[in-house]
Amino acid sequence: MAVETMPKARVVLQQCLSAKLQIQPETDETPAKHVEINRGLVVYVCFLNDATEDILDKMVKNVLMTRLSEGGDRKLVSILDLPGDVLIIPQATLGGILKGKMMQYHKNIDKETGLKLYTNFVEMCEQSLTENSKNKGVDVCVKSGTYGNRQVFSCTTNGPYTHIIEF
Amino acid sequence: MAVETMPKARVVLQQCLSAKLQIQPETDETPAKHVEINRGLVVYVCFLNDATEDILDKMVKNVLMTRLSEGGDRKLVSILDLPGDVLIIPQATLGGILKGKMMQYHKNIDKETGLKLYTNFVEMCEQSLTENSKNKGVDVCVKSGTYGNRQVFSCTTNGPYTHIIEF
Repeated sequence: MAVETMPKARVVLQQCLSAKLQIQPETDETPAKHVEINRGLVVYVCFLNDATEDILDKMVKNVLMTRLSEGGDRKLVSILDLPGDVLIIPQATLGGILKGKMMQYHKNIDKETGLKLYTNFVEMCEQSLTENSKNKGVDVCVKSGTYGNRQVFSCTTNGPYTHIIEF
Repeated sequence: MAVETMPKARVVLQQCLSAKLQIQPETDETPAKHVEINRGLVVYVCFLNDATEDILDKMVKNVLMTRLSEGGDRKLVSILDLPGDVLIIPQATLGGILKGKMMQYHKNIDKETGLKLYTNFVEMCEQSLTENSKNKGVDVCVKSGTYGNRQVFSCTTNGPYTHIIEF
């Protein structure tokens, strides 16, 4: 038996060939708006109680630098080294704990702090990816979903290789 | 700090409007084969060391009876009560633990036992869904991926509502 502390954040990572996320629902006047990425990494992110800014640096590094993507010679490389796009999706449901037949979300962070952490996490990922792209002379992007909304999402994969990392 | 034992299995659950999974790759003679589901639940499943048959009953019940699907009046209902389809995908990567920049899978169960548990899990889900369908007079299905292969996968969702349950 290992002694574990509660994580402060949880991410689920999936590889994609393409992915599309709604960032604004359709209204009477305007069609729905979406962001799209090509080959890359889908990052579902959830902040839990006690999450603070000081975990973001490690989160960004682990998400962008862990070797999860299949390179040209089938060796695993990081999304920065692939290089590929990144789609970040807020996913508060990852904080759910099963009680009876319902999920409870008591361990999730409050919305205001969650939004702040999420916004900073996205910005830090953008910054890392942009610097890396400049150095490598490649054209990749970070896209992200809007916090607190329904994440209408579709993707195609060549195998999602789903991984969970806790912080 | 809570004292926790290592889980014996881990599932990731996502809602979908439709999903498609390759079950046989293309060859020179034959096109790739796929299974498809309509609105329902995508179940990624991974068995870890010490997983045994006696956890399967609880796993099937929790996956099929937890209220994760949005019913007609936006109330959450189980996949059995929706009713909807189920797509079960073997996903050994869920057992990964980050070491440095690589994922390690030392806690994953051996392939032979994993295949046996996976096969039984799929059969038990099929049985529960079939009984439920008969009672309700509806036409829903369980589809599943082939163990140990690349899970070439695509889906559309109205919000994946990603949840993790450990057993």
